[in-house]
Amino acid sequence: MRMLHRAKPIRYPGMTLRVLARGEPAMGPGRAALIEKIDEMGSISAAAREMKMSYRRAWLLVESVNRSFSQPLIIAATGGKRGGGAVATEFGRDAVARFRRMEARASGSISRELAEFTALLRPSARPSRKR
Amino acid sequence: MRMLHRAKPIRYPGMTLRVLARGEPAMGPGRAALIEKIDEMGSISAAAREMKMSYRRAWLLVESVNRSFSQPLIIAATGGKRGGGAVATEFGRDAVARFRRMEARASGSISRELAEFTALLRPSARPSRKR
Repeated sequence: MRMLHRAKPIRYPGMTLRVLARGEPAMGPGRAALIEKIDEMGSISAAAREMKMSYRRAWLLVESVNRSFSQPLIIAATGGKRGGGAVATEFGRDAVARFRRMEARASGSISRELAEFTALLRPSARPSRKR
Repeated sequence: MRMLHRAKPIRYPGMTLRVLARGEPAMGPGRAALIEKIDEMGSISAAAREMKMSYRRAWLLVESVNRSFSQPLIIAATGGKRGGGAVATEFGRDAVARFRRMEARASGSISRELAEFTALLRPSARPSRKR
């Protein structure tokens, strides 16, 4: 099965994007990372452990994201919530890839402004130079 | 006293931006709106009421945002936390204005992708057409 991201997801230090649906978050950095992690691990509970969130929280996020879109992004296999494994659908992979492209483009479009803004931060709060 | 936004803040339906400092949010839609509202109302407690958040939460957000930057964005006048009034500093107004400009530019840079992404949402979850 093709994985969304074999390597670590690219980070855009300095900003995150959140896509809203009627004012409520439909996709953001947390949901995108969770979907990528579930697809990588093949399991909601394993992804939740890896991301240091409760299984319950991961499950609710998956339910919420599935409800926001016209098709499910994650399908949990039958055989019990915890046991059956889970995968991202092609639709889900496409949605996350689109989100990551928007994140990259938006970040690129304000890179100069973001650097100027970052200079207003307390030095100890500025992102470190390494990427 | 010059107010940050006499009119309603411009909304960029479909996305929000969050600026991070060492991975923690330094400025996002909630903080920006709170600073604008405090500056408009001249009071943290009045802004909190207006935004339907607890006074405690508003106060903690102000403390957090002031700590993230090299200068305070909000100054609460002496004479008691609740009584003395509060204003945005010029530094704070500039920071929020910069954030709003980044929001507008980032949103503009992905407007086509955002429209395509929005088409993936469940119709009932799509943002309404009116701005």
